[in-house]
Amino acid sequence: MTTTQDWIMIGGYGPESYNQQSSYQRALLEAAKDKMTEAISANLDLDLISNRFIVADFGCASGPNTFVAVQNIIDAVEEKYLRETGQNPEDNIEFQVLFNDLRINDFNTLFQTLPPGRRYFSAGVPGSFFNRVLPKQSFHIAVMSYAFLFTSKIPKGIMDRDSPLWNKDMQCTGFNPAVKKAYLEQYSIDTKNLLDARAEELMPGGLMLLLGSCMRDGVKMSETLKGTVMDFIGESLNDLAQKGVTEQEKVDTFKTSIYFAEQGEIRQIIEENGKFTIEAFEDIIHSKNEFPLDPKTLAISFKALYGAFISAHFGIEVMRKAFELVEVKAREQISRLHKVKPGMQYLIVLRKN
Amino acid sequence: MTTTQDWIMIGGYGPESYNQQSSYQRALLEAAKDKMTEAISANLDLDLISNRFIVADFGCASGPNTFVAVQNIIDAVEEKYLRETGQNPEDNIEFQVLFNDLRINDFNTLFQTLPPGRRYFSAGVPGSFFNRVLPKQSFHIAVMSYAFLFTSKIPKGIMDRDSPLWNKDMQCTGFNPAVKKAYLEQYSIDTKNLLDARAEELMPGGLMLLLGSCMRDGVKMSETLKGTVMDFIGESLNDLAQKGVTEQEKVDTFKTSIYFAEQGEIRQIIEENGKFTIEAFEDIIHSKNEFPLDPKTLAISFKALYGAFISAHFGIEVMRKAFELVEVKAREQISRLHKVKPGMQYLIVLRKN
Repeated sequence: MTTTQDWIMIGGYGPESYNQQSSYQRALLEAAKDKMTEAISANLDLDLISNRFIVADFGCASGPNTFVAVQNIIDAVEEKYLRETGQNPEDNIEFQVLFNDLRINDFNTLFQTLPPGRRYFSAGVPGSFFNRVLPKQSFHIAVMSYAFLFTSKIPKGIMDRDSPLWNKDMQCTGFNPAVKKAYLEQYSIDTKNLLDARAEELMPGGLMLLLGSCMRDGVKMSETLKGTVMDFIGESLNDLAQKGVTEQEKVDTFKTSIYFAEQGEIRQIIEENGKFTIEAFEDIIHSKNEFPLDPKTLAISFKALYGAFISAHFGIEVMRKAFELVEVKAREQISRLHKVKPGMQYLIVLRKN
Repeated sequence: MTTTQDWIMIGGYGPESYNQQSSYQRALLEAAKDKMTEAISANLDLDLISNRFIVADFGCASGPNTFVAVQNIIDAVEEKYLRETGQNPEDNIEFQVLFNDLRINDFNTLFQTLPPGRRYFSAGVPGSFFNRVLPKQSFHIAVMSYAFLFTSKIPKGIMDRDSPLWNKDMQCTGFNPAVKKAYLEQYSIDTKNLLDARAEELMPGGLMLLLGSCMRDGVKMSETLKGTVMDFIGESLNDLAQKGVTEQEKVDTFKTSIYFAEQGEIRQIIEENGKFTIEAFEDIIHSKNEFPLDPKTLAISFKALYGAFISAHFGIEVMRKAFELVEVKAREQISRLHKVKPGMQYLIVLRKN
C-alpha cells in the first residue's frame, strides 16, 4: 500500500505556527462549549465521576486549542458534579488530561505552554490514534477536535498515474466517483480501527466527543469553501511547477490523507462499527461562519493547517510561495467563494456500548 | 529563597548529548539489572500484577537509559508472573510506562527514540518530581536513576558573599561544615516532599527502586573521583574568568543543585519521612569501576552530565572551553585521581507503607 507523510502541524510559536494561527478551530471550540456542556450533563453517568477523572484529547497538536477543549470538558464535569452531589469537585476529584498525537508532534511546545493555574495533571501520549496507545479503561471522556477526518494512508491507486483511481487533484474533490469511493473505503477502515481502539481504552459508559467538519449529504468537497481553497492550493503548486519553482513530479505525488466525509457516511461507519451509540450529531453554528471571506485571512488560516505538511514535501520556500498565490487566487475568484455551498461543523457525542 | 536554573540534560542526539554520552549511567543500570530482578522477585506482591501494570521513571531525561531501566523492570515483573502463575504475561498483562521529567526536558527526542518492538504503552509526564505530577495510585513501580540527588533550589545563603554560608565552590565539597549543613537541610526537605508525592501516586504495596550514587559515611564529596572532577570544572571556569573569557561574577553565582548525600543521611531521611520501608540498600559493583581514569573520557562523561546546565549559565562556547581545561587538569593531576576515596553506587528498594 502507498504510505503517506505523517500529518503534522507547524510546531513552535512562530507567526506561521499552528499554535498562533488556529483561531478557526478555536472559534469552533467556543461555539461548541455550550453544546459540550449540555452533552456531558445529559450523557455522562454521575457514577463515572469519582475521585479520579481522566480526559484524553486525540490529535491534540502542539496547543493551544487542546487546552480550551479539555478545560471545557473539565468545567462541564465539575458543574454536573456540583449540581448533582452538592459537593465541591475540588475537594474530591483529581483530573488528569492525556494529550495524544503522533510521536513526531511537538510535545515540547505543548508541555511548555500548559496553562498556568490549570487544575489537572498532564501527560503526553505519543502514537497514531488509529492504533491502541493506552491500556484498557484509561479514560472517561475522549475528545477529538478536527482530527476525525484523517486516513492512515493515501488510498491505493490514487498516486499511480496508470491506475483508474489516479487522482489529478491533491485532495478528494468529490467529483471523481472512483476516487471518492477509494477515499471513503480507506476512511471507513481507518475510522473503524480508531473506534475499536478507543472502545478498549475508554471506561465502560465513557463518552467520545467529536468536534469537526463534514459535508452535508450530497455536497461535494470542492463545492464548499474549504474544498475551493484546497483546490487553490493545488492550482498554486501546479503554477509553481509550470514556472520551474518546483517539480511537476512532486506536485503529482502530493496528496492529502484527509477525507471530509458526508454526514450520512460518518453515521453509517459508526453504526457499522457497533462499539458506540450516537447520542447526538449536532450542527454547530460557528461564530466565524466557517471562514471569513478575506483572501489574506484564508491564506494564513490554511497555511497554519496545511503548511507543515506542504513544507515537508516541497520545502518551506515553495510552501510560502504557494500561499502567496492562494491569496491572489482567492482575491481574483472572490465571487466564486461567495457562491460556495455550506459545509457543516459538528459535535458528535458517542457513548461506549 | 534563591532559586536555581532548572536542571536539564543536553537534548537531541549530537555528540555532546546526554543521549549519546551517558554510558556511565548505562553501565550502572546493567550492573544493577540482576539486583533489580531479585528485588522485584522478593518484594513485589503477586496480587499487584493484574491486567494492567504501570511503571514510572522520575527524572528520565531524553533517553536512552530510561528505556533500559524500565525494560529491566518489565522483564523482572514478567519473569515473576510467569514463574508464580505459570501463565504467559503477554496474554494477560498490559504494561504502561510513564516517563517523567521537567517540562523543559526534551520529550520530543524521548518519544522519537522509543525502542521499536517494545511491549508497553508510553506516556510523558512533565513536571518537577518534588511535587505531585500524577493522580493518586497511578503506578505500581517507580524508578529513579541518578535523579535522587537533586535539591529543588540552591540553599539560602550559598550564593550570598555576605552570608556565613557563602560557598566559594560550585558544589558542596563536604569540607565546609556550614555549607554541608545547608545543602543537607535543603536535600532533606526536598526529598521528603518527593517521597510524600510518590507515596500518594503509588499503588498500595507498590515499590520505588532508586539507583544512584552516594557517599560512604564519613567520606567527603571532594575526596571522591566525582567530586574531584567537579572541582576541576569549577577551577576551569575560574581560569576562564581570569583570562576574561567569562565573568568572575558569573562563576561566583554558578552553583549546582545536587547533593551527594552520605548513605546514613539517605537512610535517616527516608525513615524520618515514614511513608516507605527500606527493603534493601545495596552496593552495586559497577563494571566501569565508577569512571575510567582516562582524562578524555572523564571530560566527555561529565560534559554529558553537566554540559547543558553549564551552557545555560555561561553559553556553549565557555562550556566547551571549560571541558577542554578539565581534560588538561585531569591529565596533569592523574596521580590525585588515582588516590581518591571510593564512592558508592546504590540500589535502594522502598516499599510503600
